[in-house]
Amino acid sequence: MKSLADINGYFSQFIGEKNYNKVPENLYLPIDYMMHLGGKRIRPALLLFACEAYKGKMEDALPLAHAVEIFHNFTLVHDDIMDEAPLRRNQTTVHTKWDLNTGILSGDAMLILAYQALNQAKEEHQPKLLKMFNDVALLVCDGQQLDIDFESIKEVPLQDYIEMIRLKTAVLLAASLRIGAFVAGVSNEEQVKIEQFGGDLGLAFQLRDDYLDVFGTSEEIGKQASGDILTNKKTALFLYASEVLKGEEKEALMHYYATKDFEPSQKIQAVIELFKACEADKYIVGLMTSYYDKAIEMLESLEMDEFYKAEFRKLSEKVISRIY
Amino acid sequence: MKSLADINGYFSQFIGEKNYNKVPENLYLPIDYMMHLGGKRIRPALLLFACEAYKGKMEDALPLAHAVEIFHNFTLVHDDIMDEAPLRRNQTTVHTKWDLNTGILSGDAMLILAYQALNQAKEEHQPKLLKMFNDVALLVCDGQQLDIDFESIKEVPLQDYIEMIRLKTAVLLAASLRIGAFVAGVSNEEQVKIEQFGGDLGLAFQLRDDYLDVFGTSEEIGKQASGDILTNKKTALFLYASEVLKGEEKEALMHYYATKDFEPSQKIQAVIELFKACEADKYIVGLMTSYYDKAIEMLESLEMDEFYKAEFRKLSEKVISRIY
Repeated sequence: MKSLADINGYFSQFIGEKNYNKVPENLYLPIDYMMHLGGKRIRPALLLFACEAYKGKMEDALPLAHAVEIFHNFTLVHDDIMDEAPLRRNQTTVHTKWDLNTGILSGDAMLILAYQALNQAKEEHQPKLLKMFNDVALLVCDGQQLDIDFESIKEVPLQDYIEMIRLKTAVLLAASLRIGAFVAGVSNEEQVKIEQFGGDLGLAFQLRDDYLDVFGTSEEIGKQASGDILTNKKTALFLYASEVLKGEEKEALMHYYATKDFEPSQKIQAVIELFKACEADKYIVGLMTSYYDKAIEMLESLEMDEFYKAEFRKLSEKVISRIY
Repeated sequence: MKSLADINGYFSQFIGEKNYNKVPENLYLPIDYMMHLGGKRIRPALLLFACEAYKGKMEDALPLAHAVEIFHNFTLVHDDIMDEAPLRRNQTTVHTKWDLNTGILSGDAMLILAYQALNQAKEEHQPKLLKMFNDVALLVCDGQQLDIDFESIKEVPLQDYIEMIRLKTAVLLAASLRIGAFVAGVSNEEQVKIEQFGGDLGLAFQLRDDYLDVFGTSEEIGKQASGDILTNKKTALFLYASEVLKGEEKEALMHYYATKDFEPSQKIQAVIELFKACEADKYIVGLMTSYYDKAIEMLESLEMDEFYKAEFRKLSEKVISRIY
């Protein structure tokens, strides 16, 4: 029986040995660069592990795990253009290392390469897989669009934000698990269940990110602490606080989020005090915990051996391990 | 028996009635705008007509015709960004009407929508269709990359230019015909033949464009005459001339292509004289004719009723009708 870590290592080696470069080099070298930039490979690992947990064949799932990983990296290349991000995983983003046109065109080719990987799946699986893949791919685009839209909306309801992160990140995690289950041949009902587990876990993960950015240490989050506050990012903490704070406190919050010109440590301290004043920290931890609990409840109902459930449980616990 | 014009009208109506808009509107309204911007719908019409010519079912081919048309429009949206083009079909391009991010993300969603259309094909056809579609989609990206690469290469051999236009435009025309033939269930050999016909016809079409831009009237080409000369575009005429001209004439050509600051009519007249001096016009017409002849020879060998061959012949003759 393979652990999630084993599977993760196996897939990382698979990608590490792949050479994406070919002629014309200006198109494929950026793809090779991006695919080898690292990352946790969590989506493909979960896809393969779900297949394993349901006693499916690893070789049936591998092309799909590859497809999902290429797709995810495609979204990063284009998102980094849209966000004007100079760095990704502490290295230069494709459009910065090369240029805008390279970022666009190499990203496009990656999206096609994802479908090429899907085309390596068992033929009888392909129509259904193509549907699942298209559906989730469009939802991810919807999520990215909402993210862009929110930048120019003054008051984004927290609920809309949750929907945005669900589309932008949770659905691909959920679909990865479902695809692994599908390839292993389990019932549609069971597929839907593991997909739900993944969706709720994904939401919990994302809320944890928002929380830890402000309340974690910089070692824990691997980047500057409270970066979200300094860049006026409309995170779950901010959106909750701006919904419940009134009067002077609300004005103060909005004042701090109006520009990036404040002295950093003073701004961070003031905003954290406002978050605590309305118990935004407690609320977001509570919300995260409710998604985590839902995910765990669903996990317990899945029809797989205890070994695999324990592995999924271990992964899920990482979500809350640094918070409680 | 339906004519190519009938089929074209049928498909134009099909697209005209489609509504691509949905929530989030900022993502899908630009797609609806682009898909209804017009255009000749030549690729889907050829796909459907090939299916018809081989006695296939129109409803089996329609999702593929749709896929090819969405894909083609996706390439236009992203190419217009890369070329910084303000206008397409005399109307504002997506990234100009909206913005860069909208152009990128709506284009991405269109590429996925093309695969969603393909997913409507008969299930047993899908794995093979997915392969054909992925292959041609990547070749089109390769062609776009070569086009970008050529901008910064001083001396592009005419042969490399031909390969670029083959990838960027001819292969999709060719694949459209092949997909129509595949869906109708003809042999692989016959599919390859009609694909070759389409590839050579596509090259002849593209060379004709280069020729007519300079030697056609502005009514014939529907835009300002000799625009390619004014923008220093490295067309087949220019590349041939720069290969064969020597000494002062070569220097004069390069001098005119070094900037866009010349008085327009004087520059056009001088460059046309240089093209004629080395008989670039005759050479390109000859090259175009050789692709046309190859296409017609292949067409005659196809296993379809004379009615359909006559229709394909009529279309092909349009390539040379304004030149001889």
